Amino acid sequence: MKSLKDKILGDGIVLGNNIIKVDSFLNHQIDAQLMYEMGEEFYKRFKECNITKILTIEVSGIAIALTTGQAFGASVVFAKKHKSLNTSNDFYKSTVFSFTKKISYDITVSKEFINENDNILIIDDFLTTGNALEGLVDIIKQSGANLCGVGIVIEKTFQDGGRKLREKGIRIESLTKIKGFENGKVILE
Amino acid sequence: MKSLKDKILGDGIVLGNNIIKVDSFLNHQIDAQLMYEMGEEFYKRFKECNITKILTIEVSGIAIALTTGQAFGASVVFAKKHKSLNTSNDFYKSTVFSFTKKISYDITVSKEFINENDNILIIDDFLTTGNALEGLVDIIKQSGANLCGVGIVIEKTFQDGGRKLREKGIRIESLTKIKGFENGKVILE
Repeated sequence: MKSLKDKILGDGIVLGNNIIKVDSFLNHQIDAQLMYEMGEEFYKRFKECNITKILTIEVSGIAIALTTGQAFGASVVFAKKHKSLNTSNDFYKSTVFSFTKKISYDITVSKEFINENDNILIIDDFLTTGNALEGLVDIIKQSGANLCGVGIVIEKTFQDGGRKLREKGIRIESLTKIKGFENGKVILE
Repeated sequence: MKSLKDKILGDGIVLGNNIIKVDSFLNHQIDAQLMYEMGEEFYKRFKECNITKILTIEVSGIAIALTTGQAFGASVVFAKKHKSLNTSNDFYKSTVFSFTKKISYDITVSKEFINENDNILIIDDFLTTGNALEGLVDIIKQSGANLCGVGIVIEKTFQDGGRKLREKGIRIESLTKIKGFENGKVILE
């Protein structure tokens, strides 16, 4: 997607050796038009799946999941994050380790909103270690729903989340792939 | 908006005397089509304003702010919540007291994303005490931007946030107004 690549190269701010800040269009300020285009692009890539629900995780997955839901005519469900939570019969729960923050947290989805009849597309903004995505995949497994695939805005291919998930047979479509950083600049695949 | 009223009356779950749970279409699962219609409705109501930015607050304001941003062709900025944060030259900060949780928290917006040339529409899911909205209004004032008005999905008119903000001369458009609850049912105005 050229419009997304141009944004990343033009407006993304490289911090250190492996962080890109995309606050100006994805994580704090949101470019509504770009979100719409990306939702349409995910629809093109996964339209053969009969998607019933889009699943994402708060906070920064919500916007791109919503425009993807609009493109599919499907509802969006976002997993909620908690410091740690007792198990309950009301929700599916999985525990995620945050590589950035070096802490574990729980994610939950109400049992009301996904079940074994659903055909789910996971959408998220970043794929790095894949830990959050593995939590979402675990929740889908608990629900008995089918996972059609995963749509990602920015994948960092120098981290191993994408490889690990693909090795499990999960289809991942990333709109852009960052293979590294050189002299403070992003190198896209 | 009939579609929204039908959803509230049909799918909203009343808890106690003053809480309505709208997890099935607004706060956990998101009805993408309804969000789109509400975004269009806010556009109709505020189209005479030359809106440059939509401002909301994480988490549950993001979806409705995004579809409103799409309708206006404007970017969306969401304020971030923090337990408490030192002041910085990089962001505007305001402190909000949560009536539900009985704690104060800070909200921030990067100075990069709103400034004195902006004409802002605030969008949020609920208006109850108005404390979060007052924080957003404070941030807009700090930035020197103009506030055109506030668009709300559900206002509880038996709490005094709407009255307080209107008394300050702020234009508020609420798509639905709940005047109370009777026998576990929502009473709309």
